[in-house]
Amino acid sequence: MISSSEDDPRLEQEELLRMMRHRVDALVVASCQETSKHLRKIGGEVPLILLDRRYEDFETNFVGTNDLLVGQMATEHLIDRGFRRIAYIGGKKASTSLGRLEGYRQALRHHEISVPESYIVRRRHSDESGDTTGCQAMQKLLRVKPRPDAVFCFNDPAAVGAMNAILAAGLRIPEDIALIGAGNIRYAESFRVPLSSIDVSCNALGEYVGNLVIQLTARKKPARPKAIMVQPRLIARDSTGAKMEQRSGVV
Amino acid sequence: MISSSEDDPRLEQEELLRMMRHRVDALVVASCQETSKHLRKIGGEVPLILLDRRYEDFETNFVGTNDLLVGQMATEHLIDRGFRRIAYIGGKKASTSLGRLEGYRQALRHHEISVPESYIVRRRHSDESGDTTGCQAMQKLLRVKPRPDAVFCFNDPAAVGAMNAILAAGLRIPEDIALIGAGNIRYAESFRVPLSSIDVSCNALGEYVGNLVIQLTARKKPARPKAIMVQPRLIARDSTGAKMEQRSGVV
Repeated sequence: MISSSEDDPRLEQEELLRMMRHRVDALVVASCQETSKHLRKIGGEVPLILLDRRYEDFETNFVGTNDLLVGQMATEHLIDRGFRRIAYIGGKKASTSLGRLEGYRQALRHHEISVPESYIVRRRHSDESGDTTGCQAMQKLLRVKPRPDAVFCFNDPAAVGAMNAILAAGLRIPEDIALIGAGNIRYAESFRVPLSSIDVSCNALGEYVGNLVIQLTARKKPARPKAIMVQPRLIARDSTGAKMEQRSGVV
Repeated sequence: MISSSEDDPRLEQEELLRMMRHRVDALVVASCQETSKHLRKIGGEVPLILLDRRYEDFETNFVGTNDLLVGQMATEHLIDRGFRRIAYIGGKKASTSLGRLEGYRQALRHHEISVPESYIVRRRHSDESGDTTGCQAMQKLLRVKPRPDAVFCFNDPAAVGAMNAILAAGLRIPEDIALIGAGNIRYAESFRVPLSSIDVSCNALGEYVGNLVIQLTARKKPARPKAIMVQPRLIARDSTGAKMEQRSGVV
């Protein structure tokens, strides 16, 4: 049984209760709740696995990635490519957004690069509307002086929106502004500028979740919570200038 | 409750039975079965709505679009734009693929344009792997002499694959080969070449389905099957050269 909250905490709550009424054997939740309150309650009743997003104050089963590392890898890649005025587009409260922002900050600090706070734009994002909010966030960054020469977007839908905003302003990617996302979504290679991204292997996440569900439902007694982390991986494409030289196609 | 068959008829069958065991009040199915056999049986037990794909020999509730018209509109648009060597990339047996192919043939016939049968490439497609199969189909078309100057792909994932194949061959879109898809998927505007498509208004489809489910479950007696059709709409973008003149952005 699959259900989507469309990143609406109230809808998520309703859907979780509905699933509980259907007496599910286990729950896998990519939650958009701001706190772990409701999830704690559910975790006491059936085996619960948090996917992708977690809560610092709630130790339960988790399958996801190291978001700090995602932010570091993306930012390090931009620094490697010679960019210094690096901006960040992210969400508000999800652990993915917070972890990736912290990774971004740490990478900049490590290289003794300082950027104005106006380079950090955070908005309420949903996966569905991520390209719209990403576009708006980028429009805001385009008005900042000095203009950033690179942007790390905490996810790929936001990066697609940023890409559209940059191109609509008559600027080039990556010559004027480089761009990297995270998630390596399907079609990332087919966008107006092929998008560099940090891959977090959705297939692997799915497999780990499936196996963990089987383990948890087979047990009689509750086990110690498990955290399974997928290693993030840099996929460098044109949007950071990383593959320009080896392209043979004509655009 | 949502489930995906990933276009695997056997998995669809399993998921349908699982849902029936959960005593659902109604079923909405975008089926990938080759025949209506299993669906007929289910339709006798709970209200059933077929979405997007239908069966000629099975009259039941349907929400979708006129696929013949989708094929005609796409092909007429290519003819309008001055293309004559128009090829078709489609699937094997789904009603969407068959209807769109028939619309393509009718539009060509109407304009007394004849094309070799080698211009029609049909493969087993799934939505998940559509870009891979679309790419392979396009590679086959690129070897046909004379080379087509335009391609109508029965859905957008296939069109993205075709786009990648054309660009990888060092050809330009639309100058060497124009391209149109169907479905107007999210990101269609953000691809390497913004993709012209026939929109079938997924939001409207979803609303009609929701309202019909409410009507059907409220009734005590089965009602006469309803067919609700969404009007397809041409969205012309760069891949058919339709918007080149009004673009201000730089790629």
